[in-house]
Amino acid sequence: MLSNTIAAISTPLGEGGISVIRISGENTFGIIENIFYLDKHKKKRITVSEFNSHTIHFGYIFDSGSVIDEVLISIFKEPHSYTGENVIEISSHGGVYISQRILKLLLDKGAVHAEPGEFTKRAFLNGRIDLAQAEAVADLIRSKTESAHSSSIKQLEGSLSDFVNRTRKDIINIVSLVELELDFAEEGLEFIKKEEIKSKISTLNENLKNIISSYITGKVIREGVNLVIAGKPNSGKSSLFNYLLKTNRAIVSSIAGTTRDYIEENLIINGMLFNLIDTAGLRHSSDIIESEGIKRSHGKMKDADLILYLIDSSQKQEEIKKDIKDFNESVNKEKAILVYSKSDLSKTEVQDSGINISLLNDDTIEKLKNKMTALIHSKEIKLSSVDIILTNLRHRICLEDVVSSLNDAVKTTDDGMSGEFISVDLRNSLRYLGEITGEVTNDEILNNIFRNFCIGK
Amino acid sequence: MLSNTIAAISTPLGEGGISVIRISGENTFGIIENIFYLDKHKKKRITVSEFNSHTIHFGYIFDSGSVIDEVLISIFKEPHSYTGENVIEISSHGGVYISQRILKLLLDKGAVHAEPGEFTKRAFLNGRIDLAQAEAVADLIRSKTESAHSSSIKQLEGSLSDFVNRTRKDIINIVSLVELELDFAEEGLEFIKKEEIKSKISTLNENLKNIISSYITGKVIREGVNLVIAGKPNSGKSSLFNYLLKTNRAIVSSIAGTTRDYIEENLIINGMLFNLIDTAGLRHSSDIIESEGIKRSHGKMKDADLILYLIDSSQKQEEIKKDIKDFNESVNKEKAILVYSKSDLSKTEVQDSGINISLLNDDTIEKLKNKMTALIHSKEIKLSSVDIILTNLRHRICLEDVVSSLNDAVKTTDDGMSGEFISVDLRNSLRYLGEITGEVTNDEILNNIFRNFCIGK
Repeated sequence: MLSNTIAAISTPLGEGGISVIRISGENTFGIIENIFYLDKHKKKRITVSEFNSHTIHFGYIFDSGSVIDEVLISIFKEPHSYTGENVIEISSHGGVYISQRILKLLLDKGAVHAEPGEFTKRAFLNGRIDLAQAEAVADLIRSKTESAHSSSIKQLEGSLSDFVNRTRKDIINIVSLVELELDFAEEGLEFIKKEEIKSKISTLNENLKNIISSYITGKVIREGVNLVIAGKPNSGKSSLFNYLLKTNRAIVSSIAGTTRDYIEENLIINGMLFNLIDTAGLRHSSDIIESEGIKRSHGKMKDADLILYLIDSSQKQEEIKKDIKDFNESVNKEKAILVYSKSDLSKTEVQDSGINISLLNDDTIEKLKNKMTALIHSKEIKLSSVDIILTNLRHRICLEDVVSSLNDAVKTTDDGMSGEFISVDLRNSLRYLGEITGEVTNDEILNNIFRNFCIGK
Repeated sequence: MLSNTIAAISTPLGEGGISVIRISGENTFGIIENIFYLDKHKKKRITVSEFNSHTIHFGYIFDSGSVIDEVLISIFKEPHSYTGENVIEISSHGGVYISQRILKLLLDKGAVHAEPGEFTKRAFLNGRIDLAQAEAVADLIRSKTESAHSSSIKQLEGSLSDFVNRTRKDIINIVSLVELELDFAEEGLEFIKKEEIKSKISTLNENLKNIISSYITGKVIREGVNLVIAGKPNSGKSSLFNYLLKTNRAIVSSIAGTTRDYIEENLIINGMLFNLIDTAGLRHSSDIIESEGIKRSHGKMKDADLILYLIDSSQKQEEIKKDIKDFNESVNKEKAILVYSKSDLSKTEVQDSGINISLLNDDTIEKLKNKMTALIHSKEIKLSSVDIILTNLRHRICLEDVVSSLNDAVKTTDDGMSGEFISVDLRNSLRYLGEITGEVTNDEILNNIFRNFCIGK
């Protein structure tokens, strides 16, 4: 399986100056020698083994008689490569067609198309990085904000792995004392007091729980806040959406029901990533297309982390009251901000709850933005209070399992059970720790992890 | 100006395994030595001059105290680089954030953000490639089909430049004979007969016109065929659009007026690139949004290379007749195919002109596709009849100017004017030839050319 030679385009698809096609495995050099020449008359073949690792060579990729592209090839000889295998990176002209043409040629010559994350999976399997680091690679690539970048680069550098290894060492320490005692049980020697076991575990658990609680922050950092803009038709949702994005992404008109399909865009506000969703206005509609849109609006509001619920403050007082009633009855207020739009046209008093905005007054929008980020921050822990921020649900689940096994060990101790049973609980916790870094793993875990990678990494 | 050190992200923006950030110019190595370290404790600095050209080095990019990314840097020493200057390519983890962060760091350290195509412009200005080859780079990157790829790689390899240089040599040959004769005018020596001048020019013109006529084909190859799907509301335009694309790109419903904004997608049919445009159905509408859509439909039809005009054949005979009348009155039939949709539901006879399709019968769609490509092919010359295919309007205009100057020379000869005047016409033609390869050029030409490049190339 591992002896397959894999290939994929490692740069994003699209128009750019350069594309990189990566190939890794036993047969890498053989395949390249078959298609790469130093001259455009297809006379000067190369023998990769005669070149040094980490060198770059200019030449031509040939598909039978025709030049496909002028390229640079970068040679990496095992084990000094990303995957730990023989690797060549072909740097071709950018553009979708050429890179796909070269990839196809590699596949024709015997390479297999790499699965998502397969290069990184091989790096893990060949011991170049541990599993938590491999996962950090995917997070790093996906990072859109400074905080996401900083937490994933730390994880790639090994911050989480170091914590796991330290914790493992501490637990192994306890386990060996417990098990040593078992060996000398007949002599009645006591190497570690029950109270000491419990106190050591309690310290460990405290650290673990600290890290686990960083996940709320981590999720926001990694995935962003799902922010839904909702409200009645014509309450100014699409206008606010466009204003925040500084584009004309959504069609705006004075006609109620202009937006049907919801529209989604990313936006960074005060360093925080928001997934901004503009929805169809909420009303009873006989229009089939609009009704489908309204159904989807309700679904989006249910899944939202934060809702901006817009009420048109230029309406008559009784209309506004009706809208507030609707808001109170249908929206989860814990995650909603009531926004009175068009405040420049408002004829009535400033509303008690909620925030007034006008797109003609940028200050009101700044206030709204600050309220949004403050509401999210109030739900998360301070970034500075922990060194490691868990961004990955898998890690959180593993750490929770570690805590639960350690609690089992405490209970077993309290129950006066023999050291053998305490040892079983402790060893369970070690296994869960091992799952994070990949000491303990199985195909299902690996497949789940690498499935979420992009192809070519 | 040229001594500026420029930097840009050379890979497409988006999520991928790798991004490449390129930096070129005098200060390249100094900037890199400032931010790149071989270890993550920021202890091991490098001195690029101690490394060989065309070597790759693993290390860490630092922004003051923090690691931004683990990267590979590739070193290219002048003149052995793409631009002919000192170049370093930083291969970072993919993703938008990281590459932009590294780019920003390079700019902070004194690099200037490269203009579109500025690396290639420097390659041209430093004599690494000529102007026609530089333009081929942009075409190569943009190529979406085999024919577009093949014509641009040939141009990059120098096929057009070779033709220009051969033609130039032939003209210089004539010029020198004409001018030699001038020197010996008093002796009455005749080095070249007027008929010979005219015959040589006529041969040249024939070759030039052949190449010029390849531009029709070249335009289709390079830019694709603008194909507009038009017709009454509910004639099945969006359904056909989705069927051709094999996706649900456009919202389809039984409600007339579902499509408002036109939707555009690329599609390759029988190796030919089509820009497929689905438009709002043509009718009188009181809906403001729909009316705007219909206005845009008419605009798109005017600009189209090819129109598929759909008529719903499941309608009553009189409705169909009315639609045919509308078609005859409002559509340029030279570039339109009349398509009777929903032929499975048709109650009437097969129509005489036009083509019947049913989305339930893939054969009918295949027939339509063949008719589309045949119609385009009938307007272009056979690809095989010339070696070089002009894909660039600028080249065509230059070559037309060459032909026109050569014709002037013939006329001057016929008018019995002195060799001095013939020589002026011939030298004009040389100047136009020189514009193609960039022997003769000016800032405006250069700016026009490189403005169309992507950034980072």
